[in-house]
Amino acid sequence: MIGNLIGPEIKELIHSRNFTALREVVSDFSPADIAELITDLHDEDQAVVFRLLPHGLATDVMEYLDADAQQLVLKAMGREDAARILNDMSADDRTALLEELPGSAVAQLLTLLSPEERAVAQALLNYPEGSVGRLMTPDFIAVRANWTIGEVLGYIRSHGSDSETLNVIYVTDEQGRLIDSVRIREFLLRPLETRVEDIHDSGFIALAATEEAGVAVERFKKYDRNSLPVIDFEGKLLGIVTVDDMLDVQEEEATEDIQKMGGMEVLDEPYMEVPLLGMVRKRAPWLVVLFLGEMLTTVALSQYEHEIQKAALLAMFMPLIISSGGNSGSQASTLIIRAMALGEVHLRNWWEVIHRELFSGVLLGGILGLVGFCWIEGSSLFSSIYGPHHFLLALTVAFALLGVVLWGTLTGSMLPMILRRCGLDPAASSAPFVATLVDVTGLVLYFSLAVFFLKGTVL
Amino acid sequence: MIGNLIGPEIKELIHSRNFTALREVVSDFSPADIAELITDLHDEDQAVVFRLLPHGLATDVMEYLDADAQQLVLKAMGREDAARILNDMSADDRTALLEELPGSAVAQLLTLLSPEERAVAQALLNYPEGSVGRLMTPDFIAVRANWTIGEVLGYIRSHGSDSETLNVIYVTDEQGRLIDSVRIREFLLRPLETRVEDIHDSGFIALAATEEAGVAVERFKKYDRNSLPVIDFEGKLLGIVTVDDMLDVQEEEATEDIQKMGGMEVLDEPYMEVPLLGMVRKRAPWLVVLFLGEMLTTVALSQYEHEIQKAALLAMFMPLIISSGGNSGSQASTLIIRAMALGEVHLRNWWEVIHRELFSGVLLGGILGLVGFCWIEGSSLFSSIYGPHHFLLALTVAFALLGVVLWGTLTGSMLPMILRRCGLDPAASSAPFVATLVDVTGLVLYFSLAVFFLKGTVL
Repeated sequence: MIGNLIGPEIKELIHSRNFTALREVVSDFSPADIAELITDLHDEDQAVVFRLLPHGLATDVMEYLDADAQQLVLKAMGREDAARILNDMSADDRTALLEELPGSAVAQLLTLLSPEERAVAQALLNYPEGSVGRLMTPDFIAVRANWTIGEVLGYIRSHGSDSETLNVIYVTDEQGRLIDSVRIREFLLRPLETRVEDIHDSGFIALAATEEAGVAVERFKKYDRNSLPVIDFEGKLLGIVTVDDMLDVQEEEATEDIQKMGGMEVLDEPYMEVPLLGMVRKRAPWLVVLFLGEMLTTVALSQYEHEIQKAALLAMFMPLIISSGGNSGSQASTLIIRAMALGEVHLRNWWEVIHRELFSGVLLGGILGLVGFCWIEGSSLFSSIYGPHHFLLALTVAFALLGVVLWGTLTGSMLPMILRRCGLDPAASSAPFVATLVDVTGLVLYFSLAVFFLKGTVL
Repeated sequence: MIGNLIGPEIKELIHSRNFTALREVVSDFSPADIAELITDLHDEDQAVVFRLLPHGLATDVMEYLDADAQQLVLKAMGREDAARILNDMSADDRTALLEELPGSAVAQLLTLLSPEERAVAQALLNYPEGSVGRLMTPDFIAVRANWTIGEVLGYIRSHGSDSETLNVIYVTDEQGRLIDSVRIREFLLRPLETRVEDIHDSGFIALAATEEAGVAVERFKKYDRNSLPVIDFEGKLLGIVTVDDMLDVQEEEATEDIQKMGGMEVLDEPYMEVPLLGMVRKRAPWLVVLFLGEMLTTVALSQYEHEIQKAALLAMFMPLIISSGGNSGSQASTLIIRAMALGEVHLRNWWEVIHRELFSGVLLGGILGLVGFCWIEGSSLFSSIYGPHHFLLALTVAFALLGVVLWGTLTGSMLPMILRRCGLDPAASSAPFVATLVDVTGLVLYFSLAVFFLKGTVL
């Protein structure tokens, strides 16, 4: 925000190489604003501005930079500066930086770390990608149950400066196993001589380091916490995860679902940063699969070539009918995929979903059928565009619409559930995928109805 | 989680009306777990279990219940109990409860509140729906700049118990204007005689009460905060917003975008809770609009009735061609809508987007065109299904695919930007909407190419 306003002025200072003024202007901003400003600069200017920052601020700014800028800035830095910053970064932000780099670069950067920090970094990178362990920071305050609040506050004052958050204090036993998590407010609101064991918080909720990050989001949402402890299979406290990282995880998960629902593979990178050919590689496979599926329509239609030749009029309504099926299927699959992602609909609800979608499908199909019927009959009052048998044509179109919308609705709602049942991702049942499935059956239904209603007249 | 495991046992206790055992079992859980458990019960049992909770716990559980359960439980409570719980609830959770109720019920419940709490509740409800003000709680700790840390900690100990969070302490002047926000760690890590004014945090970031909640999410994400202060236009500190509410706001925004992108109106309620007719009302309008748009294809096709009659073969490829245009448009619009929502693509990037999509469109269209060409020519090696002029037909289909995919890609990527430019919601340029636009032009292109290539042979 501030970055956008001040951008031109900064750029002026960079061009005129007025580093003293630049340092002064920049130092008034918060780390997040400086990071935004640097990200907005040209690649070659990013390191220039970054190098002006005093050391403590540089580390903070580094944590807010995006992956591309981090790498640029790191490359432009001397070994010593890079080592200092990497050692000082909080462990979770450092993991996020390292996991974007190729293995060889990671190995090189790890040698810059102090032995302790290297052990921490390697341990975190050992957790699978997308797991809670990767988001964790091992900097927390752990106290013993028999300490007094006064002792705890004294301990925090001497040991707390490295801790990622002081909002929650963890109580562990001699083996390092987590026995309780106590919010700092519980300490601040009680007399100093109270013992930790006498404070009863609402018990602790913990995450396992190997759990998926998405599970952590659910846990944070349910319990309204700002941070949660992470434990191993023995109950030992390994680190903490903070809620600000959850906003990013949640956003990324929604983006992945949305892209899959749009009928493509997940991009993994921001739109503008995906290389042109990489973009095509993410989109082409699904387009080709859908294309091959849609090929079935030509096979189906070849059965009705004779009917189309006799009554070309019938071909005119094909796009209308199949797109109505596709649209109703798109609505249904979107609703169910999202409802399942939010935990509003579970597999065990399938019967209720069918019930709902059957009702919706009949009503929606009925509405579209009626509109189609009125359109054809209405037009026939003024013109002969639909021929002498317009009433039978109108009936064919109306019933085809009813059927295809109902079928689209049911297919769209059931496909995500079937995919989930098979252990696949429901979001893969994208609108285009459902539409392709519905197109073939929709056309067969339409022409079967046409033969039924129009045999002996136009056919 | 715990709720699911313990469910059957609890239900057994409810049925046997063993309230003593029930109270004992329930009191071991955290408020969030009890809330989940109550939500899972039948309507008539929800109030039964809720009434067993001791008062303090009941308020906590109330804050975790969903809107439906809250209303059920409130209705089943006596005036006095309801008054006690409403007065004790934190202001932001109470606002969330009240805003789900009809006006008359709100008026009634407001009379149950103490004069102070009523003033607070009314003030919060006065902010527009979806604004930061509605998410705010006025319970915070504000101190003066000339206090020492010892004084601050003493003040917290005596006044802090109502505060929603003690993680950040706010510094205000005599007029109540916010001058700084200081994280509690800054107080805990320094000697007790340090003055507040000597602590330099990284300055404060604030929200305006009238800003949209979505803006707040961006701010939280950028600055990685757990809570942010909310100020009025004079800079007066009104309350705070905490990050756990942001997870809900972000999730809701993604759901709204996804539902719009699926070609319908936003549901506003969980899928399973929307009444059947309400569901149809959210879906029918867009289906009808898309249907009327798709009507244009019949108009366009009526221009080519003569060609279809002469070469019914041409009709067979119609679904294939229009669906390819629709699918590529769906990919492009999905990508751009999401990228704009994430702030990765801005209106000023339109030229770059066109450049990227032009490239993608030509390549994707080329791939599909090639597949289509090979299919027709390949089949013609073994069969005469595509007639003697199969080569010209293959060329027609291939070029139509190239054109329609390119056109779909460009339409899909530009439509969201045009909508944004007009002040409309980009997410309304749903896949079905783009497909409908592309269908008409795609068919015209296809038949124009057919006339060009096949005139004098089959046409």
